[in-house]
Amino acid sequence: MTIRDVAEYCGVSVSTVSRVMNSHPDVSQAVRERVLRAIDELHYVPNTSARDLVCPQTDLLGVVVRGAENPFFTPVIRAAEETAEAAGYAIALHQIKPGEDEILAGASLARSKRLKGLILLGGSYDYTAERAAALPVPFVCCTFTNSFGSMEQGAFSSVSIDDRAEARRAVGLLAERGHRRIAMLLDSVSDHSISQLRYQGYCQALEAAGIPLDGRLVWETVNYDMASAYEVTKRRIAENPDVTALFVIADAMAIAALKALHESARRVPEDVSVIAIDGIDMSAYTIPTLTTLVQPQAEMGHQAVNILLDMLERQGGNRHVLLETALRPGGTLAPCVRTERFSHPPRV
Amino acid sequence: MTIRDVAEYCGVSVSTVSRVMNSHPDVSQAVRERVLRAIDELHYVPNTSARDLVCPQTDLLGVVVRGAENPFFTPVIRAAEETAEAAGYAIALHQIKPGEDEILAGASLARSKRLKGLILLGGSYDYTAERAAALPVPFVCCTFTNSFGSMEQGAFSSVSIDDRAEARRAVGLLAERGHRRIAMLLDSVSDHSISQLRYQGYCQALEAAGIPLDGRLVWETVNYDMASAYEVTKRRIAENPDVTALFVIADAMAIAALKALHESARRVPEDVSVIAIDGIDMSAYTIPTLTTLVQPQAEMGHQAVNILLDMLERQGGNRHVLLETALRPGGTLAPCVRTERFSHPPRV
Repeated sequence: MTIRDVAEYCGVSVSTVSRVMNSHPDVSQAVRERVLRAIDELHYVPNTSARDLVCPQTDLLGVVVRGAENPFFTPVIRAAEETAEAAGYAIALHQIKPGEDEILAGASLARSKRLKGLILLGGSYDYTAERAAALPVPFVCCTFTNSFGSMEQGAFSSVSIDDRAEARRAVGLLAERGHRRIAMLLDSVSDHSISQLRYQGYCQALEAAGIPLDGRLVWETVNYDMASAYEVTKRRIAENPDVTALFVIADAMAIAALKALHESARRVPEDVSVIAIDGIDMSAYTIPTLTTLVQPQAEMGHQAVNILLDMLERQGGNRHVLLETALRPGGTLAPCVRTERFSHPPRV
Repeated sequence: MTIRDVAEYCGVSVSTVSRVMNSHPDVSQAVRERVLRAIDELHYVPNTSARDLVCPQTDLLGVVVRGAENPFFTPVIRAAEETAEAAGYAIALHQIKPGEDEILAGASLARSKRLKGLILLGGSYDYTAERAAALPVPFVCCTFTNSFGSMEQGAFSSVSIDDRAEARRAVGLLAERGHRRIAMLLDSVSDHSISQLRYQGYCQALEAAGIPLDGRLVWETVNYDMASAYEVTKRRIAENPDVTALFVIADAMAIAALKALHESARRVPEDVSVIAIDGIDMSAYTIPTLTTLVQPQAEMGHQAVNILLDMLERQGGNRHVLLETALRPGGTLAPCVRTERFSHPPRV
């Protein structure tokens, strides 16, 4: 029984049978069903070539998602899946918790599922060449890059925004409106990842505006989730009633912060302005609409897969793609009008 | 080169090497890394048995997600992945649009990736035995069941809530508070799926409360997304100013409806009460907190995988798991107090 027999049996070409078996999209529904039925009826088992014996699963790309509860990743994964699918690959998904090691997880997945390539979606990027060598397949860091590691640029690929510059831009929008008591809500100033980079951008923007850095306004949540963002904002706004603006590292955390501010009797934006980075669907429906720098989520997933495909199929090398955000104006930014009810004499 | 050579080379047992290669969790990090390094250094290629030749990818479960932009699915997928992982399986993810056919997509994925089993996450459930026969592997309908189809109960598996009963409960909570002009926001009254079932529950609850069904209060969005929910609510509340309560089919759509009500100068819950079904993380941070019937999302993913594992490994048969929701009280329910500014004489 060969693929030729299947083709004859249902009256289509060999290449059509092959396209059906590889899930190519350019086959009509009717033909696809006819071929699949023939495969079943003939009990056809594809002939495995020598290459298949060595690497029987030839068309899986892995996606390791760190912190999958973040809705930011959903459109990135969807775009990655669509791009992979169009090229005949499927996506093997593996979700890990924010504290877990994405390299170990990715290496294990790559071996056990015989992946062709790997996308790391979120991660602490401080890899050495030695650590990254554990990954047996080409990989792309998606949404982050190697700002704290020692790897050569040519030794890895990435798709990301310029986190420092975008944070500078966000905080600059607050400073421009006269805000001086600008807090930042982030998970950690030293996570060797996105949080730390955006914190550096925050510091640079304050310096550019001549505002001294005040550690009391750096609000670390430790956990990267909405519950922590809510708790920390509630506690810190009470301790620092003179804050008039808040830069939040991510939309989801900003949504939680908006509720904390509301319950602390702060009107947004009249008493406190809020700006974030991400642009998830949900944040377009907060009241008022969250002002945020929108990352091109679909483009990130698309580009990450394209880099892998270039490496796997077209002898492409590692490369780095830097994308830009777009400001969604929203309604959470206002000029600074210090209201007497929340201000207090400066502390030293 | 055999697995025995690898075991000797790194001084562990053959079964330890096997466990590492199959990503079993009960191997220490240090041993795992040692074995993986040995595999690389020895250029060891696993010996493929006859069974592997026929079915080289033996440990993938597929998840076909219909409407992946719905954040409701994220914790379901996470739990499915964790349960699968613990049993040595990985998840191949495939996302389709709400209008696409999950059976065709699942059948194609199952063949091309040689899946062992399939979870359909969201779908229109009106399958005939003939249509379902296209799926070459055991499958579980997760979050829905075969209410509109003709299949025997023993011919498929499902994990779901009782959509009619839960909708009755939600609408009953509104009627109890004296509401009579209760609108429902849903995608379609005839989707042969969740929307239609919940619409039936809505009708039953109205009847139980002696409230006549009024087609003007059945707000169909057609698209199952936030943008449509926002637009439709805005238009319909203007056309029906006497509405004092709204039952929404899903949290994400309810969040969009809350914004539409706000922009239509309706206070929630003083002017309009809102209740939904789902319990996504995000809806705990609306202002006020959305009152909703929380589905056990993680339990759904866990149970769906367990049914597949029972079938694949323990000769288990098809079964149906019905789970219950839990009311999260929130702050969007209030007694009906018809405010003069929005009421008008009844139309006939």
